[in-house]
Formats: sequence, structure tokens, C-alpha cells
Amino acid sequence: MEQGDFDTVTDLWLDDPAAPVSCVHPGWPVLTGRGEVLRSYALIMANTDYIQFFLTDIEISLAGDVAIVTCTENILSGGPAEDGAELGPLLGELVVATNVFRRTSEGWRIWSHHGSPVLPDTDDDNAPDTDS
Amino acid sequence: MEQGDFDTVTDLWLDDPAAPVSCVHPGWPVLTGRGEVLRSYALIMANTDYIQFFLTDIEISLAGDVAIVTCTENILSGGPAEDGAELGPLLGELVVATNVFRRTSEGWRIWSHHGSPVLPDTDDDNAPDTDS
Repeated sequence: MEQGDFDTVTDLWLDDPAAPVSCVHPGWPVLTGRGEVLRSYALIMANTDYIQFFLTDIEISLAGDVAIVTCTENILSGGPAEDGAELGPLLGELVVATNVFRRTSEGWRIWSHHGSPVLPDTDDDNAPDTDS
Repeated sequence: MEQGDFDTVTDLWLDDPAAPVSCVHPGWPVLTGRGEVLRSYALIMANTDYIQFFLTDIEISLAGDVAIVTCTENILSGGPAEDGAELGPLLGELVVATNVFRRTSEGWRIWSHHGSPVLPDTDDDNAPDTDS
């Protein structure tokens, strides 16, 4: 993603017609199947001039040939530049992701990715503090 | 969840110390392990007097003993009543969920749940329309 290498991103996604992939980008509906998912990455990459991921809180849960990897994605990104600037405005974003990988003969491949925005703690009774 | 039956919710979650569960509620950080996850459900249930899920767009991707189920959760919920009213104010919410299930000797159990809010389409260049 950081290098804008669409072919490498494509290769990372599982290609098993019997078990379609799914993907949720932060705030988006569910995308199902390689066609929809890869088109979404092509669109995102076409609209992103700069993106950098700082991954923290990485946790792996492994059973047989399936692994679930959760992490926090601290994302810094920028859109296309305007008026001759070198970069568009940079945007910081805090996302949590659940990734499901399957072990294939060619290595681990992404079966499902779900990313969602972390909202500020509103501290009311319906949003219990989860830090404890 | 609709019946407020915490024991049944507890039984649905995978109990495999070698492969911990994870859960993301809409807007929340990642919760890891049965302790954290089940405490979060206890808190949510304690603060919810009424909740109803209308599930749509259910898609299942199955491989061996693991299944990924994605769906849209159209949620109607209400908190505790105030001032002698029968119910607190009702809130509608649109959530998309990715659920990973594992087949065990006792049936299918939840290995991971990730729910996130669906945000309105802002129609700018950085948020491509995904309806096409």
C-alpha cells in the first residue's frame, strides 16, 4: 500500500472461488469477492498520493491454517496535491483492523479485512470505558 | 442479545486458550480474550433495556472448519427509561459486521466479531462511491 504497488496488493488476497474474500474499509459497507475488493483498492490508491501505516497492538490468534491478526493502524495519508504543491493536505487517522489469513501452498493470503474508525470515548453511560 | 441472556452469549464464544477471541464493537478499540470480550457484553447489556437486530446482506464464506459471515446489522436499541417512562429513547444504528466462526465438537463458536458504523457517502474524491 505504501509503495502504491497494486500488483503486490492483488497477490496478497486469497484467490479461492469456493471461499470468497471480504473487505470493510473504515466507514464503508462490506465488499465481497476479489473483483469488488481489488477495485476498491485501485480507487483508494488512485486517490492517495501518500500513505504511511504505523502498526501497533498487533495480536495473532492461530488455529491450523487460519490466523486472525488484529492491530491498530495509525495512518498518515495525503490526497493529490493542489495548485502546484508537492503534497496534498496530510490526514491522521486511527483505525482498528481485524485480518483473517489462510495458509495456502503459496503462503499466507488475506481472506478478510475489516477496518473501522476508533471514536473518541464519550464517557456517557452507553459507552463504557474499555481501558479498564 | 435481544433476550438479554448473558449465559447464552457466553456459550457462543469460542473457548480455546491457544487461539484467543477478539471483538470490536462499533467505534471501539480491539478487545482480546474471553475475559475482556465477555465483560464488554455484560456492560453493553447492563446499559441496554431494549435491542433488536434486523440482519440483511448475509454472506457466508466457508473453508474447512472456519466460516466468515458478513452482514449488515440494522439495530434498534434503547437505554434505561427515565422519569417513569416505559422505555428510554430509541436509537437506530447501521452497522456492518465480520464474524469468524470455528466448528468445534460442540458446534460453531465465535472466534472473532468486528462491527463498524457505516458512514454516509461524502461523495468527495477521497471517498469513492462503492455502490457501483
